[in-house]
Amino acid sequence: MHYAVAWTLLLWLSIGASFGQGAIPSAESHLLLTQSGRDLYTELAKRSPKALTQIEKMKRNLAELIAQPLQVPLPKDAGGGYTHEQHKANQKAIFEAGVLYKLTGEDKYAEHCKQLLDAYAAMYKSLPLHPEKKEQTPGKLFWQSLNDAVWLVYSVQGFDAIKSYLSPVEREYLKTELFEPYVHFLSVDGEETFNKIHNHGTWALAAVGMAGYSLEEDDWVQMALKGSAADGSGGFLNQLNQLFSPDGYYTEGPYYQRYALMPFVVFAQAIANNNPDLEIFEYRNGILIKAIYAAIDLTYNGHFFPINDALKEKNLTTSEMVFGIDIAYKETGDPRLLSIAAYQGSFAPIDAGFETMAALTKSEAIPYDYNSIRFRDGKEGEEGGLAIFRPYSANSKDDAALIYKYTSQGMGHGHFDKLTWLFYDNGNEVIRDYGAARFLNIEAKYGGHYLKENNTWAKQSIAHTTVVVDEKSHFEGKYKVASAAYPTEILYDVSEPNLQVASAELAEVYPGVKFIRTMALVQDEAFEYPLVLDLFEVESEEAHQYDLPLYFNGQFIHLNSPIQAHQNQLKPLGNAEGYEHLWNLGEAQANAELTQFTWLLNDRFYTWSSQTDSDDKLILVELGAHDPDFSLRNERGLVLRTQSEGKHYFLSALETHGTFDAKNEVTVNASNQILELKLITRGAEKIIQVMTKDSGIREFKIN
Amino acid sequence: MHYAVAWTLLLWLSIGASFGQGAIPSAESHLLLTQSGRDLYTELAKRSPKALTQIEKMKRNLAELIAQPLQVPLPKDAGGGYTHEQHKANQKAIFEAGVLYKLTGEDKYAEHCKQLLDAYAAMYKSLPLHPEKKEQTPGKLFWQSLNDAVWLVYSVQGFDAIKSYLSPVEREYLKTELFEPYVHFLSVDGEETFNKIHNHGTWALAAVGMAGYSLEEDDWVQMALKGSAADGSGGFLNQLNQLFSPDGYYTEGPYYQRYALMPFVVFAQAIANNNPDLEIFEYRNGILIKAIYAAIDLTYNGHFFPINDALKEKNLTTSEMVFGIDIAYKETGDPRLLSIAAYQGSFAPIDAGFETMAALTKSEAIPYDYNSIRFRDGKEGEEGGLAIFRPYSANSKDDAALIYKYTSQGMGHGHFDKLTWLFYDNGNEVIRDYGAARFLNIEAKYGGHYLKENNTWAKQSIAHTTVVVDEKSHFEGKYKVASAAYPTEILYDVSEPNLQVASAELAEVYPGVKFIRTMALVQDEAFEYPLVLDLFEVESEEAHQYDLPLYFNGQFIHLNSPIQAHQNQLKPLGNAEGYEHLWNLGEAQANAELTQFTWLLNDRFYTWSSQTDSDDKLILVELGAHDPDFSLRNERGLVLRTQSEGKHYFLSALETHGTFDAKNEVTVNASNQILELKLITRGAEKIIQVMTKDSGIREFKIN
Repeated sequence: MHYAVAWTLLLWLSIGASFGQGAIPSAESHLLLTQSGRDLYTELAKRSPKALTQIEKMKRNLAELIAQPLQVPLPKDAGGGYTHEQHKANQKAIFEAGVLYKLTGEDKYAEHCKQLLDAYAAMYKSLPLHPEKKEQTPGKLFWQSLNDAVWLVYSVQGFDAIKSYLSPVEREYLKTELFEPYVHFLSVDGEETFNKIHNHGTWALAAVGMAGYSLEEDDWVQMALKGSAADGSGGFLNQLNQLFSPDGYYTEGPYYQRYALMPFVVFAQAIANNNPDLEIFEYRNGILIKAIYAAIDLTYNGHFFPINDALKEKNLTTSEMVFGIDIAYKETGDPRLLSIAAYQGSFAPIDAGFETMAALTKSEAIPYDYNSIRFRDGKEGEEGGLAIFRPYSANSKDDAALIYKYTSQGMGHGHFDKLTWLFYDNGNEVIRDYGAARFLNIEAKYGGHYLKENNTWAKQSIAHTTVVVDEKSHFEGKYKVASAAYPTEILYDVSEPNLQVASAELAEVYPGVKFIRTMALVQDEAFEYPLVLDLFEVESEEAHQYDLPLYFNGQFIHLNSPIQAHQNQLKPLGNAEGYEHLWNLGEAQANAELTQFTWLLNDRFYTWSSQTDSDDKLILVELGAHDPDFSLRNERGLVLRTQSEGKHYFLSALETHGTFDAKNEVTVNASNQILELKLITRGAEKIIQVMTKDSGIREFKIN
Repeated sequence: MHYAVAWTLLLWLSIGASFGQGAIPSAESHLLLTQSGRDLYTELAKRSPKALTQIEKMKRNLAELIAQPLQVPLPKDAGGGYTHEQHKANQKAIFEAGVLYKLTGEDKYAEHCKQLLDAYAAMYKSLPLHPEKKEQTPGKLFWQSLNDAVWLVYSVQGFDAIKSYLSPVEREYLKTELFEPYVHFLSVDGEETFNKIHNHGTWALAAVGMAGYSLEEDDWVQMALKGSAADGSGGFLNQLNQLFSPDGYYTEGPYYQRYALMPFVVFAQAIANNNPDLEIFEYRNGILIKAIYAAIDLTYNGHFFPINDALKEKNLTTSEMVFGIDIAYKETGDPRLLSIAAYQGSFAPIDAGFETMAALTKSEAIPYDYNSIRFRDGKEGEEGGLAIFRPYSANSKDDAALIYKYTSQGMGHGHFDKLTWLFYDNGNEVIRDYGAARFLNIEAKYGGHYLKENNTWAKQSIAHTTVVVDEKSHFEGKYKVASAAYPTEILYDVSEPNLQVASAELAEVYPGVKFIRTMALVQDEAFEYPLVLDLFEVESEEAHQYDLPLYFNGQFIHLNSPIQAHQNQLKPLGNAEGYEHLWNLGEAQANAELTQFTWLLNDRFYTWSSQTDSDDKLILVELGAHDPDFSLRNERGLVLRTQSEGKHYFLSALETHGTFDAKNEVTVNASNQILELKLITRGAEKIIQVMTKDSGIREFKIN
């Protein structure tokens, strides 16, 4: 160790002059783990040691790491490669070693943390931009400055936890050799990202702000709060104003809502600890706490709704959500959050996490009640929204959920999927969204980046269960045009438990073409399970071709008109805008009254019924054409195609029915209830009339 | 009721002469639920009422049924249709009402059971063959006489349980109007099935034999034991001799092993209760108990290996296995069986079931140890076998399992898949067998029958991970030829924990073509997880094309030679013998040394390496061509194709490696270890030499 200290001194003496503006940081911790967390840890260790399993595991991991030589390689590889993963592993080790020192007071942890930080300090100033620079915003340790910001958020917490172990000289060395240039890189070299209203910006300013608190540099804190010009044009408060809707919805969608939460909540917690005067958790009517609750409501079976760019693996157990739930629990004391914490099975090793775990061990949890909810989008809440319908008296994670998306574009990760929908039931995706085309951190797949198929397929309109006009994506697939437009909510009404309904409209989705879609979740005695109703009105004065795809999950069972399978040769459905990725498996002329399509998923049947006439066409498609690297999942869909002049509407319903019990070899209600669908008007009332097999005519008013 | 009694009397008087050989059955129960079961039930109800949840549920179901009018319709519908399902529901109601009467003594249950049996008695004699007769063996209540036999196995147990509730006249009525003609239909009209060495025969004779014990008709019992000629050419004992190998393997495979077990074990239990002198459970060195253990060993994660015709939904929780495990536990007292019973979460409502549940409530279970095991096939154990390799010190249901199939054809449900293999890991199918093409009990899918694609695809050789010569199925796809041939085991050695190996050969799989395949499961420090080695030798004097498909489960990640995707048009791989069902997705010339193909399944990577030369071809295929009803699952495979004159061998290895942790965004070991594969000989020793990235050369002797 001594060589490092001596070297540090030397370095510090030689460079002191040029960096001397700041004071030497004190020995005090300022961030998320303090004496309060240590006291709770000590109490839990006595009262309920089983609750601390993850801390014991952390100790075992650290023991292994301490026994090995440090690995702090020169940055070289892209996401998923060795140096990328090693720097991520180190950020974790720095954080966790700090945590363990704080909790146990054992020097070995502090020493390991210090050695890692020293190694980075020794290298940092001489680092060029990362050789595998990622589009626009390269980092130094990583290919992307976003990863550099994340590294600092974790590592400065490790530093903060061992400050009392370090001599003033050692603290000063780390400040001048590592943290100052690091903050400079993020806030000055990376000024554009730092001031951007975007999750990359949030990470950068959380990193700088937390470094500011820990290193006791108020300038850094002020930059983080107000932007690098400290004039409020950027900064954390501005992000809180602009990135969330008044309902706590993050405009990029649930996947990035989860990701973005991390820097928001950890920095907010640091602010609350150091600037309680700012009342950050009350800011904008408690927007941050709303955002955490929103993230919970934006899941099915723990998994985030995969709208926009989204990887489906992510669920409520990710570390962002663990930090978020624990911090929200510390702030609100809401016992429903404890049931989410119990589902997560882990806690954040910070004061808030120990508080949550202490409450859990006292059995204070009550179940989280997933209810219907609508999130308005846009900073003022006027840019459309996302309606989530769940059955009343839902009491199981396997109950149905209908998601109707009429949000704004959602920035660069948004998809051209205006007025699309998703449906879940029985624990499964039933009508699904492809999500993103990406293999995160798998180098063999385009270095772990978003694949080009993310643009050519996943973002295109035909990849979604919404209307596509003339085989073109919404807004001609132009991001700027799409961003300037957003749907208007006409109706959202869940006051009638058995008929929950939302309606939204959007003009000029295409030149001269307006969409109005009304979706309802119905609970009616004629139906075994909740029924989805869907009225999609397209207004245009010109003649167009309209395609309405249905991305069903499951095994094709029956279509009520003869389908000609392309048994001996497949061709793509089209040439561009996503159509080139769909194999045309077979075609049918639609039934003259009602098209009905039944599929099986696990032990239940689903039947989609849609009013059609005999000129309409049905095309069964499968994803996979023009996929040279075989990166796309070979999922199937059914496309309803119609030619229309002027106004047109699609009237459809989705039934869940029956049981396929393979274990006991019993099948019941394999056939569905709906015989006929009709849209009728009575005065100003719009009514969907449903003729059923066993219960006569049922009527549902949808306006 | 009175009309029925009067009518019975009248009928009985008028027909007494022609059926009068038998006596009136006594009031005594002779089958599987006796006073002993009732006593255990009473004890459990006091000591551990939670263990009886399923009996309470049975009571609630019966209460609902009793409140409704009886439904005993004239047989009309095929499998999955209303009358089919209703008669199945009635067989269950008859059985369960009998059980509940026996357990509780409450008349309402006996009365419901009696009313149902009376309704069948009133109808039975006048029933013609079922209008939807299924191939060859129509039933009366059901389309297939197999279902009729099953109905009797359950219903006669219901009758047996309520005998003491019935008057002698009522017992006699049911005997003459229902059971006598029913037995006659199964044993005389259905003589061919009854005497067949086949699971349909087992059900028929179990039904007749159990009816014989309950109705006290020894002739029926003798027929069941010895065949309808009572000369030993058919019958239960003969089936025990012929249908199981000495190791307890049922020649049709695990799926039918499970199914066939039911009549075997329930009839054996009835024999043990009534003819203890026969020592039926000791018969043929305890073959029945061996068969029950075999059924356990033939599973991964509770699911049966889907070789031959098999539906993948079936697992150890099916009622056959519940009866089997409980009866085996009663017989052996093996506490490992209790852990299987605990996994099942239910017990059979018979004496054996109550014994098992009583032991479970006393926490007497110990974990079932899944070990490597080989089952010989053929009644003498000389017709090949099935080797199951599991890692030593396997302690999790998620550990690897390698299944190497060198069984005989397995009768009519056998596939043309000589020397194929399957691999499981991490809870998943990794190298998979399609199983059967069938939607059991779903009328819309060919009435729930095996689909025609079961013959054209699932049974064909190309549907399996074995060599296909000149695009033809083994034995030209001829059942009789295939049934006359079977592989010979050369080696099965699991004595060396780190190198478990089996080898088998078969001549004349095609005229002049011999197969020898050697497979090994290796545990070696060079590899993170168990490694599969595969040497497939093909001997022939002629020039042939050899295809070796690999049906991998997961997402294509990387192939080490450039693959030309057929991006704009797909054509089938061939015209017949299963090839017509495969779309050719793309082709590559193989690497001149070693082909390597990596895919991702959940959170692990798998890399298949195979020695190739640059003339070899790789074809990526997907199932779904010539599938007019879209009934096939769109699974993918990689076909290695080579042209060869004379001898040829395929040398391959399958590595499991790395972690794709999407939750924490960490990927490790995405690339594999193997750099080179070589087959070398030293004297008589055959050695597979494996060059690894980090651990040099490893050698594995495989003979």
